[in-house]
Amino acid sequence: MPDTDSYFGEPLEKAAEPGRLVEIDSDLPALELAPGLTCRPLAGRGLLGSFVRYEPHSEAPRHAHVEEQLFVVLEGELEMDLDGEVRRMRPGDAALIPAWVPHSVRSLDGPAYQLDVFSPPRAALLALLDARAPR
Amino acid sequence: MPDTDSYFGEPLEKAAEPGRLVEIDSDLPALELAPGLTCRPLAGRGLLGSFVRYEPHSEAPRHAHVEEQLFVVLEGELEMDLDGEVRRMRPGDAALIPAWVPHSVRSLDGPAYQLDVFSPPRAALLALLDARAPR
Repeated sequence: MPDTDSYFGEPLEKAAEPGRLVEIDSDLPALELAPGLTCRPLAGRGLLGSFVRYEPHSEAPRHAHVEEQLFVVLEGELEMDLDGEVRRMRPGDAALIPAWVPHSVRSLDGPAYQLDVFSPPRAALLALLDARAPR
Repeated sequence: MPDTDSYFGEPLEKAAEPGRLVEIDSDLPALELAPGLTCRPLAGRGLLGSFVRYEPHSEAPRHAHVEEQLFVVLEGELEMDLDGEVRRMRPGDAALIPAWVPHSVRSLDGPAYQLDVFSPPRAALLALLDARAPR
């Protein structure tokens, strides 16, 4: 086993803000991004998590953004087109999407659920949250 | 539905590096962090995902770090102590852990699986990866 002392180190500074425990479906707001496509965002300082539900045959059309993105399948099956590389993805699959790499995602015959994490927090999603209600 | 044109915008710049599709258990290296506790890291530029498996009755002891952390339960049940607030967590539960907030996590009678995402990439984990093999 490697030396993990530094991994489990004690605090070197006092935290400036408290942690937050959430039940995703009851504590986070829901935003409809496209027909059949709803996300629940959890915004931090340097990252933003977005829990995305797809009804069957729904699609996040091709897009790209400056924010880096980690994409993780949580339930069901999705087809991702990552700048021309098309793959069926299930739980156990993930994608790392650097700045400006175009991608699209669609669900198939069943519903699906996935997590996106953006760093820095995705500006377009913060704007949608702001348009919905004052944060 | 909100105006999501900006959410699904076209690329404004050319990507500097390609995207990466991964099968977590076969494509990512495994690091043992503590007895019964193994993670598979996926390092980007501004974030780092870490897929963590717990055998029953395993523990990530209390620690804190400057990197912000999103914690998401994927399978099983875990008990988190987030700076004194103790909660049993299952799939559907998540935590946002700002810089320097102390936390510990333990599994109960069964195995469990969760995702951490750190922003910026957690230095102590990059050091463990470097110590294991040149990246």
